[in-house]
Amino acid sequence: MPGGESPASTIIMEHIRAGLTVPTLLLDEEKCRANIHRMVRKARQAGVRLRPHFKTHQSWEVGRWFREAGVTAITVSSLRMASYFAADGWSDITVAFPVNIREMARIRDLVQQVELNVLVEDLETVHQLDTQLNGPLGIWLKIDAGYHRTGLQPDNLSLIQEILSAIRSSWHLKAKGILAHAGNSYGARGQAEIAQVHQETLAVMQRLRSDLQPSWPDLEVSVGDTPTCSVMEQFPGVDEIRPGNFVFYDATQLAIGSCVPDWVAVALACPVVAVHPWKQEILLYGGGVHFSKDRLPTPAGDCYGYLLDWTAEGWAWPAGTPSPVVSLSQEHGRLAATPELLARVRPGDILPIMPVHSCMTADLLKQYVTLEGKVIDMMHYV
Amino acid sequence: MPGGESPASTIIMEHIRAGLTVPTLLLDEEKCRANIHRMVRKARQAGVRLRPHFKTHQSWEVGRWFREAGVTAITVSSLRMASYFAADGWSDITVAFPVNIREMARIRDLVQQVELNVLVEDLETVHQLDTQLNGPLGIWLKIDAGYHRTGLQPDNLSLIQEILSAIRSSWHLKAKGILAHAGNSYGARGQAEIAQVHQETLAVMQRLRSDLQPSWPDLEVSVGDTPTCSVMEQFPGVDEIRPGNFVFYDATQLAIGSCVPDWVAVALACPVVAVHPWKQEILLYGGGVHFSKDRLPTPAGDCYGYLLDWTAEGWAWPAGTPSPVVSLSQEHGRLAATPELLARVRPGDILPIMPVHSCMTADLLKQYVTLEGKVIDMMHYV
Repeated sequence: MPGGESPASTIIMEHIRAGLTVPTLLLDEEKCRANIHRMVRKARQAGVRLRPHFKTHQSWEVGRWFREAGVTAITVSSLRMASYFAADGWSDITVAFPVNIREMARIRDLVQQVELNVLVEDLETVHQLDTQLNGPLGIWLKIDAGYHRTGLQPDNLSLIQEILSAIRSSWHLKAKGILAHAGNSYGARGQAEIAQVHQETLAVMQRLRSDLQPSWPDLEVSVGDTPTCSVMEQFPGVDEIRPGNFVFYDATQLAIGSCVPDWVAVALACPVVAVHPWKQEILLYGGGVHFSKDRLPTPAGDCYGYLLDWTAEGWAWPAGTPSPVVSLSQEHGRLAATPELLARVRPGDILPIMPVHSCMTADLLKQYVTLEGKVIDMMHYV
Repeated sequence: MPGGESPASTIIMEHIRAGLTVPTLLLDEEKCRANIHRMVRKARQAGVRLRPHFKTHQSWEVGRWFREAGVTAITVSSLRMASYFAADGWSDITVAFPVNIREMARIRDLVQQVELNVLVEDLETVHQLDTQLNGPLGIWLKIDAGYHRTGLQPDNLSLIQEILSAIRSSWHLKAKGILAHAGNSYGARGQAEIAQVHQETLAVMQRLRSDLQPSWPDLEVSVGDTPTCSVMEQFPGVDEIRPGNFVFYDATQLAIGSCVPDWVAVALACPVVAVHPWKQEILLYGGGVHFSKDRLPTPAGDCYGYLLDWTAEGWAWPAGTPSPVVSLSQEHGRLAATPELLARVRPGDILPIMPVHSCMTADLLKQYVTLEGKVIDMMHYV
């Protein structure tokens, strides 16, 4: 640094690190905004609508960064989350979860406020919505395009047509299209495998749309998980993509090949509470109630996070092999440590860890601290 | 029921079930109080102090049930949790976690309010506490008695004595004793294996105490996890036990053999959002953000919860093999379903699920509803 002076950002980062006392989720706003802009650009170039999934960040503030980038339509994973974002002015919301008819009161409330879309995969739910609603509701038919978690079987054309007919004859309901989540892309490793999931998903959706075309010419196709949306450039036959995790990325996306280390926009800062040279481990204050118990299978065993390097202005992926968090209990995390690390690290230090699944970690921490020291709140259920 | 009338409790339970709209953690107060009284009785008969771990329930209200049963000393897993329970009048608190010296301000605050004990396993931390404290602090030496998560090696007598000497020469610090958590009991299955962990743990602790006896004659021994405290009757050489999970129990404790199904005092009520006869599954609104991703390995694969039967006054373990939750994503749970279940269950129904790890599920839900309809709050970090 010329003149030996630290830039303002370095001073701020030192100040933040010095003030941390408990596990804290750090958010690099610059990386996060770059992730948003990259996906906005890609969607524009591919000619598809970007309806990002907000379950990852669950935050008004991060949502506004999307709005500043031109996004107007969003996806959420629960009706409560729809209410939370509706209260911040989002007016076009899809709840990408089979609609929970137990929450009819909330649905009735929401359709009065916003353009709401829900997922349906059976006839009975259509009847319930039709008879109990008081305003317009968009319906996407959830299709199982290969992930096998939920959705209509794409070859069950008679049931799909029956549901679409029931929607057509309803006063309040409007069929928007067919929707899939290719969660099976999370099993992919590398571009070729991601591309294969992508092509299989699109093939299923295109075939189904063309089967339905004669009677339902206006159905849209919605797909989009973070791996395929990050790696693929073309989305033939697709009207809308709904990736979510890309706003932060994480160690799982890195293993899949969806991102490079420098795109990961969150790190969990964990206090060191013990150093165990005899078993080459460091004990972190940072456990299952912070990271979640989600794990990344690796050849060396399950991994629950990777140690990053602090830099003057944030963190960086280490030069060599990163030290993995090898197990979690409620509040403890066990970090495998090199001799170099064991010699350097002391109780009371703070280490930055890349989470395995940023959606789950964010959901547990309920708050972010940016590298400029800004505290960003998230939704609370209770 | 004589005269065809439902008892009041049945009517209340029907009312509660009818009102549920989202995943809700139900708490059977009667079973929970019975668990508390059983452990209080056992500790009294064994002649040991019961210092229950409150990280499982994290609630003032449930804590008061312990107080009504005569408990006066508690264990918590974080300094924040210590503050939370101190605010409800608990005055003798052990933080059973290697002390986080980053939170010195909170420690200074707590030692002015309550009799506080923390865990230490290195010399540097003793020096930090000694120089920065303003009031008395009890110190337990954390011993690794076989679990290998953290703690001093019991054969490293020179380091242990060095730490005890440093504590003795401190004005504020007082050595309380040696403490272990036999988390390895969670790998046990059945009484014989639990007994073996118990005996190994006690042997380590007794040997260490007798080694230290000449110079430190007053050290106490603290042990106690839910499996050993539930199954064993004798605690020779032990002064204090600290089980936590027993207040609720769960599917993991059932698999270990710590409890019978009827002792499990919590169930997660989950709305059904889809029924998939073609793959014999029911999709629940209830995922990793509700259950946590903790899993129970079984011969049939990983299990994330078991389906219970509703009864007129709560829930019961089913007569045959219970249906397991076979996978979780953020909001979804996939329940393996029998043909009988598939024929009976519809979207909009609510099913009660026994969680795999009640501590983690409670931590996520942040609230209980009792079978009498009382809402019980828990601590919030943010």
